Amino acid sequence: MLDICLLGTGGTMPLPQRALTALIVRYMGRNILIDCGEGTQVMIRKSGFSMSKIDVILITHFHADHISGLPGLLLSMGKSERSEPVKIIGPKGLCSVVSSLCVIAPDLGFEVECSEISDDFQSFDLNGLRIEALKVDHSVTCYSYCINLDRRGKFDSKKAERLGIDLKFWKQLQQGLAVEENGCLFTPEMVLGKPRKGLKVTYCTDTRPTEEITVFAKNSDLFICEGMYADEEKKDKAVINRHMLFSEACETAKQAEVNQLWLTHFSPSIKDPCEHAEFAKKLFPKTKIPCDLESIELKFL
Amino acid sequence: MLDICLLGTGGTMPLPQRALTALIVRYMGRNILIDCGEGTQVMIRKSGFSMSKIDVILITHFHADHISGLPGLLLSMGKSERSEPVKIIGPKGLCSVVSSLCVIAPDLGFEVECSEISDDFQSFDLNGLRIEALKVDHSVTCYSYCINLDRRGKFDSKKAERLGIDLKFWKQLQQGLAVEENGCLFTPEMVLGKPRKGLKVTYCTDTRPTEEITVFAKNSDLFICEGMYADEEKKDKAVINRHMLFSEACETAKQAEVNQLWLTHFSPSIKDPCEHAEFAKKLFPKTKIPCDLESIELKFL
Repeated sequence: MLDICLLGTGGTMPLPQRALTALIVRYMGRNILIDCGEGTQVMIRKSGFSMSKIDVILITHFHADHISGLPGLLLSMGKSERSEPVKIIGPKGLCSVVSSLCVIAPDLGFEVECSEISDDFQSFDLNGLRIEALKVDHSVTCYSYCINLDRRGKFDSKKAERLGIDLKFWKQLQQGLAVEENGCLFTPEMVLGKPRKGLKVTYCTDTRPTEEITVFAKNSDLFICEGMYADEEKKDKAVINRHMLFSEACETAKQAEVNQLWLTHFSPSIKDPCEHAEFAKKLFPKTKIPCDLESIELKFL
Repeated sequence: MLDICLLGTGGTMPLPQRALTALIVRYMGRNILIDCGEGTQVMIRKSGFSMSKIDVILITHFHADHISGLPGLLLSMGKSERSEPVKIIGPKGLCSVVSSLCVIAPDLGFEVECSEISDDFQSFDLNGLRIEALKVDHSVTCYSYCINLDRRGKFDSKKAERLGIDLKFWKQLQQGLAVEENGCLFTPEMVLGKPRKGLKVTYCTDTRPTEEITVFAKNSDLFICEGMYADEEKKDKAVINRHMLFSEACETAKQAEVNQLWLTHFSPSIKDPCEHAEFAKKLFPKTKIPCDLESIELKFL
């Protein structure tokens, strides 16, 4: 099960009624945060997710609205007496940017391990989740992230009995680990069916639409995608600033056959994004215009 | 007249119900900001003060809760199409800290002029105001600031007539400027009475109480002072962390004979600072436990 909370829905700058876009995902009691703009730590408090249980922070890019809250968050995590290291993953240059910002956050009391993505596509296994990063098309190097909770095949207890595997090893095999008993090696493949559909959440901002994003987000259970401008007439602006229109995000969701689209990263010029909900739903019916702190619990089917 | 708004009342970290301590002061349509923590720009929006009219930013010290919002604020000021330079004043090391933080705020569209305070006391004339900085007693170099609106003596029109000064020069003399007419020099001293009581606002956080602060804040119309801990039993903690108890701020206000004390920079451990209002008022009756966005208009008497 994945607990998900979209902490904010704004882009460019925090507003009194709209926090900056960032996502927190809880799995097995531990949290992964994507982006950390000014005010993200306050939204985490409001969400009820635990700040001190954030083990991984994924940064899409180095524009202030996606990273300016990092030193404050790290300090607050330190004050909550965290001692385990925190892993920060982001584009090339991350180590230098984090160390610059942390000039005001010395003596954290825990290690900060920065990991720079060097390829256009990269995959990490972290906290029991498979995280993928895809380079997108923004004015600076920027990545979209997929959080995958893979699901093993069904455990075939009859087959395990037939093979004479002792009951005490079943759990390990169910967890995908091989076991050895009296010189006999039993591998998970021997007792597990085909891998089943897991859970997939894709977070994609800031970028123009690309074919690679469509492939990357394919069949996501939840696709969180930027919709910087609602108005079709803002296409030129979207192209210049390397952002998406609502319609482009909807088209990407449709092509990627995602189960649900949440638009986010609204321009401060959009007074009420919900006014454009009907338009977006016409293009892709399973579109939601979320509020700040929009939450969902994704479960295996 | 000075328009004043205390943007937040919190210390250490921003909370959902309490923004970080910062002050904005408007004089003649232009603004001076003291401190800029995470979320200060949102509070400025809420206050109704104009972000783009901030000409001077005074930084007390480099702890994150007093400066982490700076890159975001500067970016937002840039987006509001400001082109005039912004002056930032703060402790030694300011230029380097600002340039580190602004790694995520390039291309602002206006100049940022950093000015480092090198002495224990320094005075600047800016935006028609006399700003004074006093080094205080914190764990890192930290300054308290006084904003003074001085008031010249009353213009003696009878004396000006007697001296035969042409009416067209009166305004200049009232403004404190000398004039010359047909080889005759007229100085303001010739036609102005004794300087009258002006307005004085003192902002003091983070520090232990000191005798110098009492002198610095003397006769302030408004003394905004930290009260990090309400409980007298936190004295040891206050001494270690170089902060003040409510009682110490009240005692400073009393000794400095200020007209009004606003406590601020409350520790996140204080649930409701107003619970301690009665205790504080007993020590210094003209104490206020302000809310975020507490505002006042100070006028000449």
